[in-house]
Amino acid sequence: MRIAIAQQNYHIGNFDANLAKLLQGVTQAREQGADIVVFSELSVCGYPPRDFLEFRDFIRRSQEVIAALCAASSDIAIVVGAPTVNPDIEGKDLFNSAYFIAEGAVQHIAHKALLPTYDVLDEYRYFEPAKSFHTLTYKGYRIALTICEDIWNVGNENPLYTICPMDEMMSEQPQVMLNLSASPFSYTHAQARIDTLRANVERYRVPIFYVNCVGAQTELLFDGGSLVMNDSSTVIAELPYFVEAVQTFDLEPLIGSSPTDDCVRDKEKMPLIYEALTMGIRDYFAKLNFRQAILGLSGGIDSALVLALACDALGADNVRAVLMPSQFSSDHSVNDAMRMVHTLGCQHDIIAIKPIFESFTTALEPQFAGTTFNITEENLQARIRANLLMALSNKFGYILLNTSNKSEAAVGYGTLYGDMAGGLSVIGDVYKTEVYALSRYVNQRHGQEIIPENIITKAPSAELRPNQKDSDSLPEYDQLDRVLYQYIECRKGPNSLIEMGFDRALVEKTLRLVNINEYKRHQTPPILRISPKAFGSGRRLPIVGKYLS
Amino acid sequence: MRIAIAQQNYHIGNFDANLAKLLQGVTQAREQGADIVVFSELSVCGYPPRDFLEFRDFIRRSQEVIAALCAASSDIAIVVGAPTVNPDIEGKDLFNSAYFIAEGAVQHIAHKALLPTYDVLDEYRYFEPAKSFHTLTYKGYRIALTICEDIWNVGNENPLYTICPMDEMMSEQPQVMLNLSASPFSYTHAQARIDTLRANVERYRVPIFYVNCVGAQTELLFDGGSLVMNDSSTVIAELPYFVEAVQTFDLEPLIGSSPTDDCVRDKEKMPLIYEALTMGIRDYFAKLNFRQAILGLSGGIDSALVLALACDALGADNVRAVLMPSQFSSDHSVNDAMRMVHTLGCQHDIIAIKPIFESFTTALEPQFAGTTFNITEENLQARIRANLLMALSNKFGYILLNTSNKSEAAVGYGTLYGDMAGGLSVIGDVYKTEVYALSRYVNQRHGQEIIPENIITKAPSAELRPNQKDSDSLPEYDQLDRVLYQYIECRKGPNSLIEMGFDRALVEKTLRLVNINEYKRHQTPPILRISPKAFGSGRRLPIVGKYLS
Repeated sequence: MRIAIAQQNYHIGNFDANLAKLLQGVTQAREQGADIVVFSELSVCGYPPRDFLEFRDFIRRSQEVIAALCAASSDIAIVVGAPTVNPDIEGKDLFNSAYFIAEGAVQHIAHKALLPTYDVLDEYRYFEPAKSFHTLTYKGYRIALTICEDIWNVGNENPLYTICPMDEMMSEQPQVMLNLSASPFSYTHAQARIDTLRANVERYRVPIFYVNCVGAQTELLFDGGSLVMNDSSTVIAELPYFVEAVQTFDLEPLIGSSPTDDCVRDKEKMPLIYEALTMGIRDYFAKLNFRQAILGLSGGIDSALVLALACDALGADNVRAVLMPSQFSSDHSVNDAMRMVHTLGCQHDIIAIKPIFESFTTALEPQFAGTTFNITEENLQARIRANLLMALSNKFGYILLNTSNKSEAAVGYGTLYGDMAGGLSVIGDVYKTEVYALSRYVNQRHGQEIIPENIITKAPSAELRPNQKDSDSLPEYDQLDRVLYQYIECRKGPNSLIEMGFDRALVEKTLRLVNINEYKRHQTPPILRISPKAFGSGRRLPIVGKYLS
Repeated sequence: MRIAIAQQNYHIGNFDANLAKLLQGVTQAREQGADIVVFSELSVCGYPPRDFLEFRDFIRRSQEVIAALCAASSDIAIVVGAPTVNPDIEGKDLFNSAYFIAEGAVQHIAHKALLPTYDVLDEYRYFEPAKSFHTLTYKGYRIALTICEDIWNVGNENPLYTICPMDEMMSEQPQVMLNLSASPFSYTHAQARIDTLRANVERYRVPIFYVNCVGAQTELLFDGGSLVMNDSSTVIAELPYFVEAVQTFDLEPLIGSSPTDDCVRDKEKMPLIYEALTMGIRDYFAKLNFRQAILGLSGGIDSALVLALACDALGADNVRAVLMPSQFSSDHSVNDAMRMVHTLGCQHDIIAIKPIFESFTTALEPQFAGTTFNITEENLQARIRANLLMALSNKFGYILLNTSNKSEAAVGYGTLYGDMAGGLSVIGDVYKTEVYALSRYVNQRHGQEIIPENIITKAPSAELRPNQKDSDSLPEYDQLDRVLYQYIECRKGPNSLIEMGFDRALVEKTLRLVNINEYKRHQTPPILRISPKAFGSGRRLPIVGKYLS
């Protein structure tokens, strides 16, 4: 028997486009001689559909796609994900299901049992967990269908759930596992995925076909990397990352196999992040039907990196960089920015903000009489820039790219409605120290100094007052980022951090800054998620809390 | 036996303040001769603690409060809510628990079984559901402890869960139910609460003491309204709304009782909303340790209502209103605004924005050459106003109150970083038609025209271009609000709405506007939640979705 796995990029709620894509996958699989084609989790409606699931009309339209796929299944079985209405009155109204469709009809439906409800995932908000588990038989093979998290309770030191669906199905002696996934990317996820599949195959001694989707859904990035593992837990194939692919495999050689070398791509952190972010930009624009981006180019490293990524994602023709020097901007900032714009060949503008700044200070003279220049005037400049960028965006139809990094976002070193504005935050999940590494990678990848070396080596400064340096207000980024990582990604509290050897004053200052700036992050654009814990929907903290603050 | 119920206002993560408040409640109950004092759900740490629960240090500090309460329990039993570490490796790491403390020690712990994970609630994100259920005995009485949602599966046409914890405990013949709640307010919630308690008492024939917390936690408002119901399902007492209270009752008369008239306060929608919003403002400032608010006062009804509410919540001395007329502002706007400011006696400023607007258009002349005045210039004015307000806020330490209403937020009739800016949205969950009703209620309550009649009766306009009216771009608000309510609160899809008799073009236009403006609402301030479905954490929709758009 031949099984195709199809990793595709769906658009949430765009049922016509998703059906067309699924049918195209069916056609490709058929051409490859497949008996079964397996798609990813909730592929008919796109993942995550979030509260659209609360609309009956949305479920009805998902079911219409299932009906259309039935009509295409006369000579090939189709395994696809869709929401199903729970017929019982008790419990949540829906299941998250895998449909096995063949010979024109739905032959079997398996519901998801383990509903990830942590970080960016909210599945128990919508779905009732499955309580019964059965295999199905097709062309003489007993097949176990599972959905994403269903297999993630195995090989886990601190399992989140009290059951494993595969355990329940083993009495029926399945010969192959098919897993439909929509598993959000982070730079640690690729290895975790292989480890989890291996733990399952070692426990159940059955080969697995794992299908993950690809593409960006706002902040959530899906990297594909679908896998086939034989019953000796050797990776037979790993589909490419960040692109669509359909590939077909013979099942027989995977059963009663011998261990060989894994067929696995190299995964280095910076290339993964680069591919993830450029896909994230590209898909955000494509799915919102926009083509062109605008951003403020300061001469600092953050906006330089975002400009480089945007040009790679959208084409330099579609990116407009705006230089908005103030009276505090240094010559090298403008020069470095101009050098970069010329290298890339993207459209640019230079708009001095001093006259606008003066019109504000004149208007505020009666109120500000007797006060001195402070953070207010710094913020004012940042907001004037945002206003200019938004004016260009509104007039000509750009999406404004935000250029804040994760370190700044963490400690609130940014101006709300100023440099924190934008339709999409490109590097808001990239720490400052990683911004440097990624910038070097961009230059290395292009074999060219896209980002001028001077931008990479000079001391970071917001240039909002004379001779300002980030290090005037913040700890050095290499120290700061290490504390932030332990606090944000690893959820280490103050005592643990101090026990780890971090300076108490640094820890207390950093944690306090993170916590008192929750209100700012509440109003930021969606942030492309590349780490295991990004700011945004995966990190939910009270604004009025008083804890470590 | 005498049981005290204590509805209090906790501060999330502020363990010292919460312990002091709990001890004060214990003292009050003791003075009232209580044998037991019952507090609300997760009272030791405040509700909802959200991802603070992922820090071991946070759990440790919660347990320190429990230890301190043990020391205070020599002569009174204390029932209090706290997170508990799950000793099993499998399953989530925590339980949401009710602690029964007496004679210096924890006598019994009941875990919550039904974990609300919908709308603004995310409990399965953190907690493992209870799987075993037992009563406890104290002073000869068998007591069933439940936590909030645990009793909400009864008397429900479409129950969300497949078990009812009280069903499991009935074999042990409890004589009283104690329910610890943290149940977010909406204007429909008070009646739902009484109906649910009654359904439980009718099913189990046991009296119930229901304790709800009070106070605002950012956008979530808790109204108190704690209840005592005898075993004939008569409401014996309803504690006041929106304020703290401790009250003690004899248990004996509630058992084997006869039905009498309910002791229940009148609940009218506008007074409830008024009390909720003023508490929401007051608590947001108090818990963030701010005293003073600023807002833009346009002469329109939205900002007028917010000004009135802010002055009632914080005192007129603590509120500053800024009039920022443009060249398109009408005389009546400034006059109406000034009349209101004089009535209230709050500080005000008048800052004309035309010179600043001209400095922007001058700076953008090269880019905007050949274009005509359009929404860009309208947004520009709104953003200049936000920049002025934020400058005053930064310089003098105000929190900016946002004045957008729910109808505008729904259809995207507002400017991001402009009139959509602010630290807190006061009326973002109040439809425009409700804004009128609430404004009339404010005047009626004060017995005075706080909000000038002319502001209430004139046609709404943003005044960002000559002779602009809201009705130029939007359907009339009475029609619009009806469609929005059915779509947002009731999750009716397009077909249902058309079947209900709404005009197809109106439905399609409205739903499209709501859906394409998800990106704007993503960046708005927290919105005080007064309806069963507010924008914000309770409504989660994809930004890049393409559904009904």
